[in-house]
Amino acid sequence: MNHSLLKVNLKRLKQTLAASSKIGRLPNGGLCRLALSNEDKAMRDLFVTWLKEEQLQVRVDDFGNIYGRRPGRNPDSSPVMIGSHLDTQPQGGQYDGVLGVLSALEVIRVLNEHNIETERPIEIVNFTNEEGARFEPPMLGSGGLANIFDEQYVFNREDRQGRRFKDELARIGYAGKKENRAKQIYCFIELHVEQGSVLHREQVSIGAVEGIQGMTWLEVRVTGEADHAGPTPMSMRKDALVAAAKMITAIEQVADEVGSGVTTTVGRLAVEPNVVNCVPGQVVFSVDIRHFDDATRRQTVHLVQEKISTIAVMAGVDIEINNLWETESTHFAQEIVDLVMQGAEQYGYSARRIVSGAGHDAKYINAIAPAGMIFVPSINGKSHCPEELTLMEDIEKGANVLLYVTHQLAQHRGD
Amino acid sequence: MNHSLLKVNLKRLKQTLAASSKIGRLPNGGLCRLALSNEDKAMRDLFVTWLKEEQLQVRVDDFGNIYGRRPGRNPDSSPVMIGSHLDTQPQGGQYDGVLGVLSALEVIRVLNEHNIETERPIEIVNFTNEEGARFEPPMLGSGGLANIFDEQYVFNREDRQGRRFKDELARIGYAGKKENRAKQIYCFIELHVEQGSVLHREQVSIGAVEGIQGMTWLEVRVTGEADHAGPTPMSMRKDALVAAAKMITAIEQVADEVGSGVTTTVGRLAVEPNVVNCVPGQVVFSVDIRHFDDATRRQTVHLVQEKISTIAVMAGVDIEINNLWETESTHFAQEIVDLVMQGAEQYGYSARRIVSGAGHDAKYINAIAPAGMIFVPSINGKSHCPEELTLMEDIEKGANVLLYVTHQLAQHRGD
Repeated sequence: MNHSLLKVNLKRLKQTLAASSKIGRLPNGGLCRLALSNEDKAMRDLFVTWLKEEQLQVRVDDFGNIYGRRPGRNPDSSPVMIGSHLDTQPQGGQYDGVLGVLSALEVIRVLNEHNIETERPIEIVNFTNEEGARFEPPMLGSGGLANIFDEQYVFNREDRQGRRFKDELARIGYAGKKENRAKQIYCFIELHVEQGSVLHREQVSIGAVEGIQGMTWLEVRVTGEADHAGPTPMSMRKDALVAAAKMITAIEQVADEVGSGVTTTVGRLAVEPNVVNCVPGQVVFSVDIRHFDDATRRQTVHLVQEKISTIAVMAGVDIEINNLWETESTHFAQEIVDLVMQGAEQYGYSARRIVSGAGHDAKYINAIAPAGMIFVPSINGKSHCPEELTLMEDIEKGANVLLYVTHQLAQHRGD
Repeated sequence: MNHSLLKVNLKRLKQTLAASSKIGRLPNGGLCRLALSNEDKAMRDLFVTWLKEEQLQVRVDDFGNIYGRRPGRNPDSSPVMIGSHLDTQPQGGQYDGVLGVLSALEVIRVLNEHNIETERPIEIVNFTNEEGARFEPPMLGSGGLANIFDEQYVFNREDRQGRRFKDELARIGYAGKKENRAKQIYCFIELHVEQGSVLHREQVSIGAVEGIQGMTWLEVRVTGEADHAGPTPMSMRKDALVAAAKMITAIEQVADEVGSGVTTTVGRLAVEPNVVNCVPGQVVFSVDIRHFDDATRRQTVHLVQEKISTIAVMAGVDIEINNLWETESTHFAQEIVDLVMQGAEQYGYSARRIVSGAGHDAKYINAIAPAGMIFVPSINGKSHCPEELTLMEDIEKGANVLLYVTHQLAQHRGD
């Protein structure tokens, strides 16, 4: 370990996280801080207070994204942006994106207390409605900023009670100006909990995120013949569930055949008529197929379609396969991935390259600027639940690597 | 074909069935004639009128079972009982048990118009609440008569609105006397639609029912680990649905291994959390295992338990198997089965021995007297639905065989 390295103040970061954990706290220890709710407003107000205490230039854009800018020696050059989101799921945990925003704040505090002036500005950011739990789809703030979503589309999203995004933003006092949107971002770094269990199971503290997997969602409808279980001999049946069971087994085997980390998941399944003494006449199930390489994913989708169609013919059932949704993979900037690995090495932390299975604000920001992410372990891979946990020692490590990467990038010259 | 054989009058039987089909008729052509409803009362009233028109001695017992007795030469000897039930499912068909009661009435009419006096009395019967659709469990009238159910148990059954069996029986005017219950039944013959598709698919008109299969219902709970589909590599998963799929395939294979007509059905299945992008953490499914030979059924149950337990170990998931319900098989009197086959042969009808997969009033009556059943084909095995259909030519054949068997048995002498 290099002893001249800057380090975060874990005690202070813990206090900051503890203050956040009181806003929207659930009796079960989880957090409910839905986007643009009163709890979100309370958290935003506290966050802005903290930004101002650090003498940051605070601004809010028309999507409610909050920025705090630390100018640097060349205040007109494009900033290194760091942050994530402060909103949570209705039964969310205490870390998730919150950790990324508050660790970014800790980075600013360390630089301030050491009076370190960087070449470039550093901008901390809190993106609006990352979770998508209140306003669908997720990542409206970052997606709006990156022009993935049209601004009117974002403004007119409604929650289940029919309340508009734009009205709720105004109601909590965070409808800012369009000219406050970030322009010319030098790069964006987001610290986040992994949400999966790879780091925890491998006992690795730092994940240098190479990108986000592409994804295909299929819906498969298997139609056989519903019959009474009693009087229908096995040989006369067209059992949709027996056929679906063979398909599910084959879908798992396809992942094994293709290998290289592709995942295939049958997560949702419904049986008709779903009665103990009825031979199932229809089964509908989903298939989720993910890989970092889009060609590999498409090959897997093709193999899945082929295998289950063959099984349908053999079983004498009808099959209908619909493409529900598809998204291409995101590749983060290689220099940032390398820098995260280098940072971990400097501090002597265990680290590995990793691919995210879930979407994050960095996915959209990557469309307008080089982006990267740092993952820290989620105990047992749990997230979006009150049991979500990341150990304090890993939080410290993640925040230190964020500090390192931010400091390095903010010393880059030029535009 | 033996041209001296007695035959039913199909035109008259069709008219009788048509009159029944108007009582409780649904817009979709089905029947809703729930036990002890106003529709049931209307049907009973018409039925009693018909019985009286045939000079039968009508009586009603304390379960509301209606009997019509044709004395014969030895009016004190035990009667040949024929009939079934006039109640239907909420979306029932026009035949089901109705066919058995109204064909029995046609048998009486034929004997009457030919002035045929039998040795023994013949008693036509309509059993109360066979369907169990309004008052659970099914077959309350025949089960009460056969002392399968205690009389207080039957009287106190409640429908979903909390209305008692006994009160509803009184309300429609069919609460008869305990002394009217059938005693000393010589034998009982029930004509019924098959409800399965064996006769239809094999193009056979008459089923000589050897008995009713025994049945075991298991509930299997497979517990793996719920994980996000994205970040959880295949090798780290404990996917409850993939494990369950292998079990379902194995359960079908067990039926093949054991052979001899055993059936295994997984009819009901639920996945938790049942979300497209979540690896299933838990699956609960039912297994319905049936065979006419109880030892074969028990062996099959044992094999199923063994195979799925092995799969659970291999897949690294937990398994819990509960015995939900079990009922032994019913074996009808061999002489009656033979007589049904013989009757079909006399008329030149195609016939086969068959085992019923579903319960019937004859199951309970078999506990107190030799019982037997005649099945006629259900088109596509459909029943308990408005599409239920049995062709008129098969109805005629079934009624003729019922006439033959009844006539033969009613000529038996002695007690």
